[in-house]
Amino acid sequence: MKVLIVFAHPEPKSLSTSLKNVAINEIKSQGHEVKVTDLYAENWNPLINRSDFLNLQPDKAMRICDESGEAYAAGMLTEDVKQEQEKLKWADVLILQFPFWWFSMPAILKGWIDRVYSSGLAYGVGEYNDERSGDQYGEGSFAGKKAMLIVTVGGPEKHYKNRGISGDIDDLLFPINHGLLFYPGYSVLPPFIVYDAQTAGEKDYEAAAEKLRERIRSIDTDSPIPYRTQNGGDYVFPYVTCEMILSPILRPFLFIRKGQHRIEKSHVRHEGPIYQYRWKTVKTARILDCLKFWTSTDL
Amino acid sequence: MKVLIVFAHPEPKSLSTSLKNVAINEIKSQGHEVKVTDLYAENWNPLINRSDFLNLQPDKAMRICDESGEAYAAGMLTEDVKQEQEKLKWADVLILQFPFWWFSMPAILKGWIDRVYSSGLAYGVGEYNDERSGDQYGEGSFAGKKAMLIVTVGGPEKHYKNRGISGDIDDLLFPINHGLLFYPGYSVLPPFIVYDAQTAGEKDYEAAAEKLRERIRSIDTDSPIPYRTQNGGDYVFPYVTCEMILSPILRPFLFIRKGQHRIEKSHVRHEGPIYQYRWKTVKTARILDCLKFWTSTDL
Repeated sequence: MKVLIVFAHPEPKSLSTSLKNVAINEIKSQGHEVKVTDLYAENWNPLINRSDFLNLQPDKAMRICDESGEAYAAGMLTEDVKQEQEKLKWADVLILQFPFWWFSMPAILKGWIDRVYSSGLAYGVGEYNDERSGDQYGEGSFAGKKAMLIVTVGGPEKHYKNRGISGDIDDLLFPINHGLLFYPGYSVLPPFIVYDAQTAGEKDYEAAAEKLRERIRSIDTDSPIPYRTQNGGDYVFPYVTCEMILSPILRPFLFIRKGQHRIEKSHVRHEGPIYQYRWKTVKTARILDCLKFWTSTDL
Repeated sequence: MKVLIVFAHPEPKSLSTSLKNVAINEIKSQGHEVKVTDLYAENWNPLINRSDFLNLQPDKAMRICDESGEAYAAGMLTEDVKQEQEKLKWADVLILQFPFWWFSMPAILKGWIDRVYSSGLAYGVGEYNDERSGDQYGEGSFAGKKAMLIVTVGGPEKHYKNRGISGDIDDLLFPINHGLLFYPGYSVLPPFIVYDAQTAGEKDYEAAAEKLRERIRSIDTDSPIPYRTQNGGDYVFPYVTCEMILSPILRPFLFIRKGQHRIEKSHVRHEGPIYQYRWKTVKTARILDCLKFWTSTDL
């Protein structure tokens, strides 16, 4: 297994850096290969601009999608970007590790995505017409590869639960997991998250390190987040929307209440029961599941 | 009214730049004051690092929250950051304008947040104890001010609807609207979004420009997104979670099905009906509302 870790933290004496080293060592000790892009240490330039496209005429207005696709196809991207793209092609597993700054990744990592994710590589892949909207969301250049986030969060886990004030961590990471990783084809493993990083002491570090080693060891066997694929039949073209209609006969069933939630918010996340309602017959298991849900106090 | 526009796009001949100028002109023509931070044009440095904290000892391991708070309090931040912070204090309205790159903002704007949003200004404000977790989410340094996003999205609106493959645009912008704007106290106005920016022609530009002028004129009167405030009573301390329990007696009512969705996902977003369930008696209006919902085909 070949693993690429793209790491973003400026402080060598930080929890993030320590965990990065734990990951590297565990990957090696499992007999896998690992490459690391340490963005701050390598002084990565995060600002995409005309200088990225060596074949762009000085007097031409820059349209990044176009310039990116042409420069990628012509091999006219800058060396730093080309090297990162080679690493992406080399790796079976991509790990993005970063501190959760302002509900997202540090600028230096976002700028790595902005510059390295070229048109023709990470987007603009496949056919675009009325029946098809490219090879993306489950298909694309990185299909068959796996990706995972390692995130250190300053605050407590409770704030990032379903009812926490910061919002559900899965919602906050959705633009990254679904938009940056699933989009170009990666199978996205559940993120490895360390909370309370701001107040973490030596003991917390040891506990986090041991959990991380376990996660690294299970990369091969962990199940990815079951996002719906764009071209798997759930989305209707040309608008690529998830038009799932529940039969009125089914509506009186209590579990549709649960289904409603899934239709509204989870359609791009998990292959939930509502997916079965449309294509399969309702199963007893589902009814029991819903009775359990009904009697739960989590309302 | 004093308006600060923080703008992030590298191309002067772009739809984004044109709309930025439309906004500036409309603000001025309404007799308001406007300042602009054009991040690419001003060659903004987006990478927070030790060099941000002029009073940080060279041999000390950097803990950004601590260093940021100490440097802000001591006036030992760099000049470029200080100037932006002064603009934030000056403005009644903050507008962040950017192209929607990879489901978020360009790195240069994220780096403006990472560096300018210092501890003591944008976070770490107020008391932290068992009864209180600071002045944030509706309170804080920018309480009483308004903020709004102007976003250009390359793809079609359908992809960003509730059932669109990219995910609901409100979900994708939630980390920014709720996490970057509401968090330090801004009242967050609904975002102004231009879709199909990638294929926009002259005619589309004119239409977008006119809509933007209208939005600028209504900044004073538009209602903000009704996020729940941290200290407004909806969140329970010390964990700051939204513990809303529905009475089992109410569960059999159909409309709870709708409520379930609101409990699960909208608690940090809107003051939805479920909020009433807990504190008020069920109203006939709600039942009718739910019957209407029940008979709708949007299932």
